[in-house]
Amino acid sequence: MDFVLRGCVCDCIDKERIDARERAYLVCVGGKSAGVFDTLPERFAGLPCTDCGGSLIIPGLTDLHVHASQYAFRGLGGDLQLLDWLNANAFPEEARFADLGYADAAYDIFVQDLLRSATTRACIFATVHTPATLRLMEKLEKAGLRALVGRVSMDRGCPPSLCESDAETAARDEEEWIIRSSDFKNVRPIITPRFVPACSDALMRRLGGLREKYSLPVQSHLSENLGEIELVRSLAPDAECYGAVYDKYGLFTGSTVMAHCVHSGAAETELMRSRGVFAAHCPECNANIASGVAPVRRFLNAGVRVGLGSDVAGGSTLCLFTAMAMAVRCSKLRAHFTGEADAPLKTEEVFYMAARGGGEMFGKVGSFEAGFDFDAVVIDDAALRSPRPLTVRERLERLIYLADGARIKAKYVAGAKVFG
Amino acid sequence: MDFVLRGCVCDCIDKERIDARERAYLVCVGGKSAGVFDTLPERFAGLPCTDCGGSLIIPGLTDLHVHASQYAFRGLGGDLQLLDWLNANAFPEEARFADLGYADAAYDIFVQDLLRSATTRACIFATVHTPATLRLMEKLEKAGLRALVGRVSMDRGCPPSLCESDAETAARDEEEWIIRSSDFKNVRPIITPRFVPACSDALMRRLGGLREKYSLPVQSHLSENLGEIELVRSLAPDAECYGAVYDKYGLFTGSTVMAHCVHSGAAETELMRSRGVFAAHCPECNANIASGVAPVRRFLNAGVRVGLGSDVAGGSTLCLFTAMAMAVRCSKLRAHFTGEADAPLKTEEVFYMAARGGGEMFGKVGSFEAGFDFDAVVIDDAALRSPRPLTVRERLERLIYLADGARIKAKYVAGAKVFG
Repeated sequence: MDFVLRGCVCDCIDKERIDARERAYLVCVGGKSAGVFDTLPERFAGLPCTDCGGSLIIPGLTDLHVHASQYAFRGLGGDLQLLDWLNANAFPEEARFADLGYADAAYDIFVQDLLRSATTRACIFATVHTPATLRLMEKLEKAGLRALVGRVSMDRGCPPSLCESDAETAARDEEEWIIRSSDFKNVRPIITPRFVPACSDALMRRLGGLREKYSLPVQSHLSENLGEIELVRSLAPDAECYGAVYDKYGLFTGSTVMAHCVHSGAAETELMRSRGVFAAHCPECNANIASGVAPVRRFLNAGVRVGLGSDVAGGSTLCLFTAMAMAVRCSKLRAHFTGEADAPLKTEEVFYMAARGGGEMFGKVGSFEAGFDFDAVVIDDAALRSPRPLTVRERLERLIYLADGARIKAKYVAGAKVFG
Repeated sequence: MDFVLRGCVCDCIDKERIDARERAYLVCVGGKSAGVFDTLPERFAGLPCTDCGGSLIIPGLTDLHVHASQYAFRGLGGDLQLLDWLNANAFPEEARFADLGYADAAYDIFVQDLLRSATTRACIFATVHTPATLRLMEKLEKAGLRALVGRVSMDRGCPPSLCESDAETAARDEEEWIIRSSDFKNVRPIITPRFVPACSDALMRRLGGLREKYSLPVQSHLSENLGEIELVRSLAPDAECYGAVYDKYGLFTGSTVMAHCVHSGAAETELMRSRGVFAAHCPECNANIASGVAPVRRFLNAGVRVGLGSDVAGGSTLCLFTAMAMAVRCSKLRAHFTGEADAPLKTEEVFYMAARGGGEMFGKVGSFEAGFDFDAVVIDDAALRSPRPLTVRERLERLIYLADGARIKAKYVAGAKVFG
């Protein structure tokens, strides 16, 4: 049960530092990391050791925002902006999940692809449908992944097929689902108001009550698109900012993830910081549906917790290396176009966001520091050939841009091998 | 020698239209396309037919701008802007190509990866070194690819190891290389002044003379970065625009490719249009090294010829599907940040740019229209699973975003199978 991996270990220390080592030992004891060592300490000498050769070993990554129910149209339909995109692409696809057979086939593909990625933890949107959402949770549990899964709450501003009849019914259905979810060991429910335009005040109030009653985390969308923000302003004219609407109902907490935050201003940023809310930065989606680029440098400077989201299917891929590369690129384009002095994001920072930054939503996750959950991904990048030797640090940077040329050999979640 | 392929054919008709067909026949006669047919015409019934099943078949793509000599550091060193990036990353790597052994190893990797991509034609920068450049040309010729390869001319503003001693020597070396290149059948030389800051007026004048004497195409860089443009303004204060410097020496012609054009204004755009110059749009590079986003919509509206470049190693990947997806995304971010009314690029437009738009640099290339060179790529996208059937047009769009999930099965260049 306890074991050692040997390989080229890249650990995430903090926002400024990657610890990259040639041929180091990584020790797992009781499902937790016991640390990274250049020479194996005597006390671990009796443990079975798997030599991963020249492969890279990195902490498991956390996808802070992904719609499992939109995976079927990944890479499609990006010619619209958010509110039209929801009506044309997202809602029609999500309506199919009333059919459990369809949900079963679609979620099979999603979970298998997630399993083969570098992601070990995820905050996932399902749909409004309880049976389909439970089916997704079963599949994730069986795959050995750790996830927070949200049955989506919505009772206004959406097609009848996805709209709950009233706040009371919606809250009753939600509570029933929460109770039925208690059987899962590694997959937990997360309160998921879709976003303010789709949730009445009455529903938000009830979701806040359920959050408190069951001590649950929360996920939703925040300040993604200018049209959406205008709509929220008309729906909640008294709120100081979009985020204040969630806060009013107790949904803006230290275990809340808010996706996007592209247009969050000073007041909203301060509210996120003071409550401990996680911002899920989703750069590919924000480009694909023309929302803009989130002011991540300002979040980091302000002390807001930040992780990365693939945001499938506003984003096209589950690959968080792609999200890292897009985060760097988009920060550069933001600086170029706005003329602001905000420094672009660096490799260390985006690696931190994908590993430790998002991992914090799940506890001590996203690093090989002793005591952290042993989430590890073994990656063979030999197909990315080079005419000269590269350092381990260089290979990690290259992987961020060229992950499709590498191969995930094995994946461990809290010490259990789930793939490879 | 003549043959038929059967599969899901996606043809590039023009900027507005993709002809996507289920299970069509694609006929090759004498190395050229004889057209796409739902039912095979009687006159082709005797030809051998390869059934590609449900695979997609698309025209070969043209990479209008790529630095073969920078491939070793793809995905690395993106934390700088152009002029610093050249000094820190590009020039030190290019200096290694004085060693023919290194060049051999590096170009082997480049050519093998290019062969396995969807690219059938490319405009390629090598280095200032004649033996290494000839070695690259040999490898491309042997691989069956068609390419325009440039020995890079530079005689100022660069490290001594890459700087030619004077314009006269540089022009003599260039002419000697042109003559030695005449043995190749499918790979041709292209006059390649690196960019204005690296080429004296005397060298530019001589390169213009060689272009005329040998009727050669031209490639260079144009208006990529604000610091570079400022430098050009100081070096050529009398020029109406950056492009006018090339034009003054007869290097701005109907067989000239100019990479980037990120900051080309109205005068430069009109000069490009009137001369028939190709703009090589390199969106990934322009994001990676923070240059900005080229005004491609304006180029298209003005009638400027536009293709796509991977621009390795400012860009990280040879994959032109990635370039297409980045072109769409970056056009959206440009529109978002500038507030200009320029419509973002659509799938049809970026497919056109990668196929027919860039292909025009090589003649009738980039379409299955009868009479075009038979460049075709067979792609198995079965690993991109879907719970519901997708149309061929949808599969092509998805491929643009998720090419790394698909597999290139076979590739044909001018009727010859070069891979698969």
